[in-house]
Amino acid sequence: MAKAISFARGAPSLDIIDVDGLRAAAASAFDADPGGMTAYGTAIGYKPLREWIAERHQVAPEQVVVTNGSMQADAFLFEAMVESGDSVIVERPTYDRTLLSLRNRGADVRMVELEPDGIDVAALERVLAAGAKPKLAHIIPNFQNPAGYTLSEQKRERLLELAGSHEFTIFEDDPYVSLRFEGAPLPTMLSLDEDGTVVYASSFSKTVCPGIRVGYLVGPAELIARIVKIATQTYISPNMVSQAIVHEFCISGAIDNSIEVVRKALRERAETLCAALERELPDARFVRPQGGYFLWVDLPRGTDVAALFEAAAERGVQFVKGSDFVLDGGESSLRLAYSGVTPEEIEEGVKRLAEAYHELAGVANEHAA
Amino acid sequence: MAKAISFARGAPSLDIIDVDGLRAAAASAFDADPGGMTAYGTAIGYKPLREWIAERHQVAPEQVVVTNGSMQADAFLFEAMVESGDSVIVERPTYDRTLLSLRNRGADVRMVELEPDGIDVAALERVLAAGAKPKLAHIIPNFQNPAGYTLSEQKRERLLELAGSHEFTIFEDDPYVSLRFEGAPLPTMLSLDEDGTVVYASSFSKTVCPGIRVGYLVGPAELIARIVKIATQTYISPNMVSQAIVHEFCISGAIDNSIEVVRKALRERAETLCAALERELPDARFVRPQGGYFLWVDLPRGTDVAALFEAAAERGVQFVKGSDFVLDGGESSLRLAYSGVTPEEIEEGVKRLAEAYHELAGVANEHAA
Repeated sequence: MAKAISFARGAPSLDIIDVDGLRAAAASAFDADPGGMTAYGTAIGYKPLREWIAERHQVAPEQVVVTNGSMQADAFLFEAMVESGDSVIVERPTYDRTLLSLRNRGADVRMVELEPDGIDVAALERVLAAGAKPKLAHIIPNFQNPAGYTLSEQKRERLLELAGSHEFTIFEDDPYVSLRFEGAPLPTMLSLDEDGTVVYASSFSKTVCPGIRVGYLVGPAELIARIVKIATQTYISPNMVSQAIVHEFCISGAIDNSIEVVRKALRERAETLCAALERELPDARFVRPQGGYFLWVDLPRGTDVAALFEAAAERGVQFVKGSDFVLDGGESSLRLAYSGVTPEEIEEGVKRLAEAYHELAGVANEHAA
Repeated sequence: MAKAISFARGAPSLDIIDVDGLRAAAASAFDADPGGMTAYGTAIGYKPLREWIAERHQVAPEQVVVTNGSMQADAFLFEAMVESGDSVIVERPTYDRTLLSLRNRGADVRMVELEPDGIDVAALERVLAAGAKPKLAHIIPNFQNPAGYTLSEQKRERLLELAGSHEFTIFEDDPYVSLRFEGAPLPTMLSLDEDGTVVYASSFSKTVCPGIRVGYLVGPAELIARIVKIATQTYISPNMVSQAIVHEFCISGAIDNSIEVVRKALRERAETLCAALERELPDARFVRPQGGYFLWVDLPRGTDVAALFEAAAERGVQFVKGSDFVLDGGESSLRLAYSGVTPEEIEEGVKRLAEAYHELAGVANEHAA
């Protein structure tokens, strides 16, 4: 079989990870604070990193908890805020792991359509007007996973108003924010919020590396204190060694270089992917992303993406089916991640994907004939 | 106030942590496997470390899951096995965090008295004969926290028989096993078990350092697979960077040197503590530990350890009250951890503790007079 090309996993390829910078940061950390990084510490996270994050978001350190990756942060937040039967708004489509987490907690998950400029706030207003009393609205504002879309500033403001008037918390899940390769950055809802209605999550998985497993939450101090208590009971403290390495990577400026390298690669990969799709698979409809890892592709209504998945796999090409990111529907859509593939692999992968698509279309036409 | 001396925290002092070895292990790891340690990996843990652990326990890798510290492993195990109302046997006294975890899950916690050679198996048999149907028995076999006692080989075998006939799982919680500084090592129940009735947990917190947060579970492959699924949904994967560092620390042999340094220090600290107690506080009753971090002290019946705690704190001395490790009682006992204090601090700390004790005893005598 042909060499495998994966558009499936939202993860960076090794060539855009600053391994030398990480090795140096580890050495510096062991020199700078051997006591702090080898001891248990506490569930708030490694203190200097917590302070660095607080400074970056211009909040008090008491509003920050640093965790073993941001999925763990989500798990703590849901444990603190979401009980079985509670209503939670999510985007449609949304990150499959969040969807699964919420469903496992027994949440009443309401999906609201995602548009190219973010969640359909008019539709959300109708849901609220119809009597929904959500506890939480989970929003991935920048280069959304899986769609790659970005929430407009106007919609950010409108969401904050709705959260205020309907008393729900916005869970601003923002791991991709630093990966903008086109257009001007937009303010976070956290920074626009004056009423403590936002809990913000982000991570160093995309700016340092995923294996370092460092994420964090920013929110009202009272909520963060409750989460710290849950974290203490779960694991005493998160990884101090890796958080100290991240802290050194941040204060040395290595993170800025790393982000530049990642952005440049992502820009090239996204452009290559869009051009290849336009050339090889003109039936594909998509919105050109301004950052992040993902491109959402809609194929003509009636396209059987489950069959395409099999046909592509036979050609060594992986992607994730659109149906994985919704409660129902999504059968003619798919998510392509371009973060872990080189431009050459993208060219070749799209060629094979198009072959698989055209073969299926040919079969379908024969059946119709 | 006098310089603080803490007998409270079960953690090593920095002077017995091999910081240079850790720095070197980090550098080697980034050289040896940059791709493996910076990527997400999966919830089973860093594969080479999982294999190293499996080899050490002579089990298949599928029987091992490596986690972010062993408390997190406990949390996963309890999530997989213990539902609200389930009966769980624990030792009396036992580790306060385990007790809290189990109570938070709504478990029906049954404490069975701990003797100097381990849990009172005759008392456990009476509990079982009276109709208890425990799901799990939590046992800390070596240098128990908080008591410092070690389970005899005969009792290990008897526990396995009881687990077999009464169909409960033994949760063998063994973080201190490598820290024996006197006497011959005893076989783990895991190694004696032929029926898959043991789930074994341990950690590198005591042999590498706590801040590295690497622990693990060994158990039947089917149970481990269920736990891996829970782990995936919780945090995708544990810390690959720190697990790769631990792996290098292990295969380079640094861990053996580290364990020797720790054992030697603990032996000296334990001896100093026992001698100081005999000299300064002859009312104290305790069993000389053969390893580990802790010494359990019983004071004469009627001693108000809560008052002693306050009086000691006024003199800058901390310990943990015995009552923290039981559901009720323990008012005249305390736990002294000698892992984080130098011999000089131990001498000074016991002197102050004895002063506090004698002052209280004097007050009590005055009241009685």
